[in-house]
Amino acid sequence: MSSPRKVLIIGGVAAGPKTAARLRRLDPTAEITIVEKGHFISYAGCSLPYYVAGVVKEQKELVSTALGVPRDPAFFQKSLNVKVLTHTEATRIDRAARRVEVRDANGTRSLDYDVLVLATGVKPVVPKLPGVNLPNVFTLHRIEDAEGIKAILSEGKAEPKATPVHYFEHPAPHRNAVIIGGGLIGVEMAEALAHWGCRVTIVEMLPQILPMLDWEMARLVQRHMESKGIRVLTGTTAKSIEGKDRADAVVVEGERLPAELIVIAVGVRPNSDLARDAGIEIGVTGAIQVDGGMHTSDPSIYAVGDCAEDHNLVSGLPMFLSNGANANKKGRVAANNIAGRDDQFPGVVGSAVCKVFDFAVARTGLTEKQARDLRYEAETCIVPAPDKVHHYPGMKSIILKLIADKATRKLLGAQGVGAGEVAKRMDVLATALVAGMTVDQIANLDLCYAPPFSAPLDNVLVAANVLRNKLDGLMHGISPIEVRGKLEGGEDFLFLDVRTPAEFEAGHIPDTKLIPLGALRDKLAELPRDKEIIAFCQISLRAYSAERILRASGFTRIRVMDGGFAAWPYEKVTRKP
Amino acid sequence: MSSPRKVLIIGGVAAGPKTAARLRRLDPTAEITIVEKGHFISYAGCSLPYYVAGVVKEQKELVSTALGVPRDPAFFQKSLNVKVLTHTEATRIDRAARRVEVRDANGTRSLDYDVLVLATGVKPVVPKLPGVNLPNVFTLHRIEDAEGIKAILSEGKAEPKATPVHYFEHPAPHRNAVIIGGGLIGVEMAEALAHWGCRVTIVEMLPQILPMLDWEMARLVQRHMESKGIRVLTGTTAKSIEGKDRADAVVVEGERLPAELIVIAVGVRPNSDLARDAGIEIGVTGAIQVDGGMHTSDPSIYAVGDCAEDHNLVSGLPMFLSNGANANKKGRVAANNIAGRDDQFPGVVGSAVCKVFDFAVARTGLTEKQARDLRYEAETCIVPAPDKVHHYPGMKSIILKLIADKATRKLLGAQGVGAGEVAKRMDVLATALVAGMTVDQIANLDLCYAPPFSAPLDNVLVAANVLRNKLDGLMHGISPIEVRGKLEGGEDFLFLDVRTPAEFEAGHIPDTKLIPLGALRDKLAELPRDKEIIAFCQISLRAYSAERILRASGFTRIRVMDGGFAAWPYEKVTRKP
Repeated sequence: MSSPRKVLIIGGVAAGPKTAARLRRLDPTAEITIVEKGHFISYAGCSLPYYVAGVVKEQKELVSTALGVPRDPAFFQKSLNVKVLTHTEATRIDRAARRVEVRDANGTRSLDYDVLVLATGVKPVVPKLPGVNLPNVFTLHRIEDAEGIKAILSEGKAEPKATPVHYFEHPAPHRNAVIIGGGLIGVEMAEALAHWGCRVTIVEMLPQILPMLDWEMARLVQRHMESKGIRVLTGTTAKSIEGKDRADAVVVEGERLPAELIVIAVGVRPNSDLARDAGIEIGVTGAIQVDGGMHTSDPSIYAVGDCAEDHNLVSGLPMFLSNGANANKKGRVAANNIAGRDDQFPGVVGSAVCKVFDFAVARTGLTEKQARDLRYEAETCIVPAPDKVHHYPGMKSIILKLIADKATRKLLGAQGVGAGEVAKRMDVLATALVAGMTVDQIANLDLCYAPPFSAPLDNVLVAANVLRNKLDGLMHGISPIEVRGKLEGGEDFLFLDVRTPAEFEAGHIPDTKLIPLGALRDKLAELPRDKEIIAFCQISLRAYSAERILRASGFTRIRVMDGGFAAWPYEKVTRKP
Repeated sequence: MSSPRKVLIIGGVAAGPKTAARLRRLDPTAEITIVEKGHFISYAGCSLPYYVAGVVKEQKELVSTALGVPRDPAFFQKSLNVKVLTHTEATRIDRAARRVEVRDANGTRSLDYDVLVLATGVKPVVPKLPGVNLPNVFTLHRIEDAEGIKAILSEGKAEPKATPVHYFEHPAPHRNAVIIGGGLIGVEMAEALAHWGCRVTIVEMLPQILPMLDWEMARLVQRHMESKGIRVLTGTTAKSIEGKDRADAVVVEGERLPAELIVIAVGVRPNSDLARDAGIEIGVTGAIQVDGGMHTSDPSIYAVGDCAEDHNLVSGLPMFLSNGANANKKGRVAANNIAGRDDQFPGVVGSAVCKVFDFAVARTGLTEKQARDLRYEAETCIVPAPDKVHHYPGMKSIILKLIADKATRKLLGAQGVGAGEVAKRMDVLATALVAGMTVDQIANLDLCYAPPFSAPLDNVLVAANVLRNKLDGLMHGISPIEVRGKLEGGEDFLFLDVRTPAEFEAGHIPDTKLIPLGALRDKLAELPRDKEIIAFCQISLRAYSAERILRASGFTRIRVMDGGFAAWPYEKVTRKP
């Protein structure tokens, strides 16, 4: 009948190739072309820190299928009948003429389209610092960045260890490395550089690393990183980078941090200039505005992947996220709509996970801070618990934080930190969040139980029950941050540790009084009735029992510290081994 | 005012103690008493196979808190002010007088109650086989059973290995052990006995082990067990146990299986006789009938834990389940209602997981067989995929099966098998099932992604997309069972392997034709247009592309085999290493 439709896709990393592959399966005749300004297509961008670390050994693994077949233009041509033009940059969209101006080594030309798909991704933010263009200053976005970092790390035949260790345990050289930015990439890069024995300092402007978490959860991660030899400077701004031909230091307020390698990881921004210049609507977040079908304001143009604005299912607000998983989902939805199959991408809850040395760190939904900024009346809990039956070998502890809306009892968000299986719990909570579940529904979820996989009541269920107890007024909580504020303000209260003497001896919080739970019923007379009592134990389960005992005995000013000793994010007095 | 309420709880293993603990926190004055006919209370019944295996080293770990405090009557008295009477059997309920007759070493007496809680649990089914009472024939239900089995295994100073291995790799003695019953406990016990170097045979009456799975998924588990030296006889009935003072063989049709140790694991039944004798309503499953508040037909009597009938949220039907996780949830609900806080247990979806050597095996919801028996028009998929990004070290494959209702596109059930992280995926699917999600909603879930934890599109999302493709008529599936039927029936069809020659060389299915996907577009002329074509690859992703290519070229009788080579549950031709 008519000639085949021309579908032009700008961007060849994640969402672009996904759109092409899905579309080809739906439409055998469309002329599908991908233009990509870089050399590599369909590469595993999220694996770059592991490639720098030497955990992923070869560059080709980043661009190959599971069978080792390179995902290059020839592969796309042969297996999908999709044309890929690399080293080809789209410079202008002529919407009236349905034409994109592109530039490659041979100059400038135009490509026609019937349907245009923008999969232009993100670019790393580079602060305007003196010295930022010196050759040993990197962002980590492209394979070429990783190669540049690896070239410096490998100088003098240095080699990475298979696991990231404290630089004490690594043979010299201990190169000085400074990472500017303590977000997800900054933290992953700190671990990557620890594989090479680097002395790493993270410089973060905000009062915490990992703003995807609340402060006290991020602080637990920071303490873990510090135990691995990473120096973390929060609330610290990089003023300049010093050096002549090569950078040799980062200057911050009051200190010059020597550096043979500098990584800038202060975030990413959507590549939306091409769309903006063509008069396509840009969202409040700076990403390209799309509807659920991934249509832009121009009916012939779709946007997919990170450059397409996201919709937060919890807050109902637009958001900008960089996320390879959602990039794939958006590509599928766009391809379906291009092929005439109505499809909608429902939106996101902002789930994320990262490995930080021995810890897994994950989050979904809103943080407590975000929830309060959005005027939710939030109740929260912090609940440490074993990730398997406590006597099963290999059991490790994890700490969950849940945030719920007091009015509806619905989950608003969750965070998890620890050496155990955190990702599983966060995926369950992300699913519950999408379903709009209350904490009561979550507490009764029928999750899989056997001793090698969880305790009879999984961490998720235990945490939900703690939150129910708080919402029901059975347990009155107080956050460790608030307790610390009282201590620093010199407030008069009883800080009551109800653990055993042996636990206290092994480690305790300064200025606390020890009365083991088993002895509490007999020692009620020793407790002040005129003062507030703040109780805690290891994980605040026994402290909850203590509150119930004290209230039954007429004490009214009693609260339980969230997360107990296990989640206390400040100094502890510990017995030297 | 009035005297404290008397709450009497019959049964001290899981749900009983949970009810007591929760009630004490809600009600400081009630007189709470637990009667337990056995010696141990609050013990980790699900850990018994790991105790037999030597993975859990000491008996006391089964009855202690995480801090090593024994959960004995003194502990319940001291920490909860709950009285526990062990070695005390409840023999009769006098509902009119609100009195329970109990028997202990001193004889018979009565205990009054205002509220009675039945937490009587289950008992193992023991078939009426000749020889079943011989001393080396065991069930595995109580700690005493585990001790009896361990005593035999330890004879001659034998010791277990830390990991379960093929008996070839274990020093003698290789005791012969027969397990009658291939359900969850039977399978866990096979692994436990492999720690001791036993030559284990499982005798299962049904055509498959693990009836919690569909046949072809169970068959994958069976093949894994066989690779570890376990002999599995399905469709086989034990006729008798032979031996004089000690059993020395199990006789099955046509064979005498020598046995120094015999474990009966043919299932459990609810302990509901006490309730039935008192005229309390018993459900169709034989468990005690309860409403969501855990009330029995007598308003003063609750039932909790395994003896209380469950409600299946997917089918809407009553079911009987033995599950330590739900026992705890039911105990909490009952305690809330006893304390005057209205609470409801919503029901279950039948989630379960077990470790089988290197595999995790899990399920939730309905099997395909159950769904068809309930007259659902079910669509299914079987999807092998890596549990992490394929180039991340330690990546392992898992195979998911999803079952959905064609009419509503809602998930009905799921199963997972493999060496990778199966439990995470099943917990996500269990949560989606409780929420009543469609496969379309599941495919767009915002799960946590980073290379150490999942592929960009997690196994759950990939499987949901495969099922969507089938529901949408883009992919026409055929189960390996149906393909096998065609082969055995001598049907004329083309069994097309679209993998690479190297993959084919390493292992293939007999009577297949190899045309790698990349060559397919050029070889269309070689394919028959008059015959059915059944295509597969390793995981049936490339076979799906093959179907799309063939349909675009006018082929109409083409189907893709579910799960591909990876999930083929029959013989394979493999290159000898």
